[in-house]
Amino acid sequence: MAVVDQAPVPDVMHKPRSHSEFEIIRRFFATPNLSFPREGIELGIGDDAALLQVPPNKNLAMSMDVLISGIHFPLDADPSLIANRALAVNLSDLAAMGAEPYCFTLGLVLPHSDEKWLAGFSGGLEHLARQYNCPLVGGDTSRGPLSISIQVQGLVDNNRATRRSGANVGDKIYVSGTLGDGAIALLALGLDSHLGSEFSLAVSEPSAACRQYFEDAYFKPQPQIGLASAAGKLFSSAIDISDGLQGDLQHILDASEVAGNIRLGAIPYSKSAMCCVSPENRLRAALFGGDDYELCFTVAEKDCVEAESIAKALGVSITCIGDINAGEGIDYLGTDDSPVEATEQAFQHFSATT
Amino acid sequence: MAVVDQAPVPDVMHKPRSHSEFEIIRRFFATPNLSFPREGIELGIGDDAALLQVPPNKNLAMSMDVLISGIHFPLDADPSLIANRALAVNLSDLAAMGAEPYCFTLGLVLPHSDEKWLAGFSGGLEHLARQYNCPLVGGDTSRGPLSISIQVQGLVDNNRATRRSGANVGDKIYVSGTLGDGAIALLALGLDSHLGSEFSLAVSEPSAACRQYFEDAYFKPQPQIGLASAAGKLFSSAIDISDGLQGDLQHILDASEVAGNIRLGAIPYSKSAMCCVSPENRLRAALFGGDDYELCFTVAEKDCVEAESIAKALGVSITCIGDINAGEGIDYLGTDDSPVEATEQAFQHFSATT
Repeated sequence: MAVVDQAPVPDVMHKPRSHSEFEIIRRFFATPNLSFPREGIELGIGDDAALLQVPPNKNLAMSMDVLISGIHFPLDADPSLIANRALAVNLSDLAAMGAEPYCFTLGLVLPHSDEKWLAGFSGGLEHLARQYNCPLVGGDTSRGPLSISIQVQGLVDNNRATRRSGANVGDKIYVSGTLGDGAIALLALGLDSHLGSEFSLAVSEPSAACRQYFEDAYFKPQPQIGLASAAGKLFSSAIDISDGLQGDLQHILDASEVAGNIRLGAIPYSKSAMCCVSPENRLRAALFGGDDYELCFTVAEKDCVEAESIAKALGVSITCIGDINAGEGIDYLGTDDSPVEATEQAFQHFSATT
Repeated sequence: MAVVDQAPVPDVMHKPRSHSEFEIIRRFFATPNLSFPREGIELGIGDDAALLQVPPNKNLAMSMDVLISGIHFPLDADPSLIANRALAVNLSDLAAMGAEPYCFTLGLVLPHSDEKWLAGFSGGLEHLARQYNCPLVGGDTSRGPLSISIQVQGLVDNNRATRRSGANVGDKIYVSGTLGDGAIALLALGLDSHLGSEFSLAVSEPSAACRQYFEDAYFKPQPQIGLASAAGKLFSSAIDISDGLQGDLQHILDASEVAGNIRLGAIPYSKSAMCCVSPENRLRAALFGGDDYELCFTVAEKDCVEAESIAKALGVSITCIGDINAGEGIDYLGTDDSPVEATEQAFQHFSATT
């Protein structure tokens, strides 16, 4: 984790909201395009709390992600892209539970009031909020170092949420989309990665198309809401890949008290990842990079054909990359299913000896 | 609003959670004392989202407050007091809606991992969480400048939440507890206030008892959950006083499309406020100070006796300070109900001419 210095202490301590804060809320957030009516929302922005009427046959799913400037997004990025990323990574958590987006709240900390920035940010939120019928219903604003706290609420049929703990021996392990793009995007966008100096582009300059691809991968991750909604009933467990496949799959294995193997050759990569980084760094990005916001999920063998068929009909790529076994931990398999060491330690060892 | 500089950009951009972050969550937050079971909570910390089963006869109330170090609490304050304040100010929003606490989520941004700080912070949350049967069910942690985002969830009978918009002409205006203590506490604790240089203590040094009183007022505001739960059905409207009586009552008046008057002589003050500041500064603190987290509410004249009787039985002080009238804005009344100018402008004028 990067170290960030403490924020400087301002001149005065106080809480009262200023006129300009209410103006900001009115002009940029409590708008018909962002805080729009939706069934089940009794009261949105403008009182001490929002009020929801959750349908009796539904569980309410709630997930909060905090994004800090300079860690989770570049400070100088387009505010509409920052907004898109902030809401999308939260929606991805709902997808992992098989929940339909319902509404969200926003805690926005801004160093100063900047109308152009706020208009861009608000517009970026609107786009996704409308796409997923997920209006803003409340939150808070404050002065301070730029950060964004979003809590999303979702709805899922009672007792039908996809938990991490449901994987069974014999299930197949799948991932949606392609992996590693989130980490490779940092390189393509000229940002530093935590994966070390060995983690670099194999090309001196990505093509304009690749650069655009990675910018979209980083700022506009596509939460797999549609896939989870259509096929989630067939998933025995699921998680969204925010911290890298290795760590996130391990959470499923731990919660389900099982082991898993990954066929390294089966991990899906984008054309741009194939074009811009070495095979070793693609693997490193997929396993340890994070920020992919794809789903890793397990499916009972009998349901695999149906799950693949649903995904195909949706135009969403899903790939079987391994199996759930008895035991604990992850085994990595190379060509001919021979065991391979693909741990962080192995990469570090490799780096140290080359 | 105070201006806080932008946080410095760290060395690397990434999202993956480190081992130590999971350890922090396990040791200090996903504990039996803080993330305890509660009816209606199907799943707490440990998956992509928490899952709630909201009773069909209840609305879910949700409120988020973000507290920034150096603005909403002093950076070097006791972490258990910071935690108490952060959760209490959120619970106060539920009280204003007449909602019973249900559960909360926490977005904690910390500059570095400090076990002693985390243990104190976690302990401060536990205390209130247990008191109000309001467990922690999820959230996020990150490195960065110290800030605390809390979202509280509450339950309130369907269509029975107390909104700001329900005040009617002829209703009486009440406040709970005493006003001005939050702002005067800043002076007593040696912190700067936004109320200007005229806003100062009338004593060179508050007594130890007064100092302790104001420390408690600042860090341990008592959310009026009990009052709202017992008497809230008699409130035609309510708001919690976080920004000062003037601004917060004005929100009720705006939402209800009515006017109000305040009898300045009726505003209740604590003994410590009477002891430590001048009458003029008490009034300034009550009207413009904020941070009191008492309730301002309206009651139909026919219900006043019952409301006062319920409050008395609870041992909670409530005081009628004025009336709801037709029109708009707030009229201030002095002795003999004569009109008085008690606006911020009047105070500024007073300051400028003395």
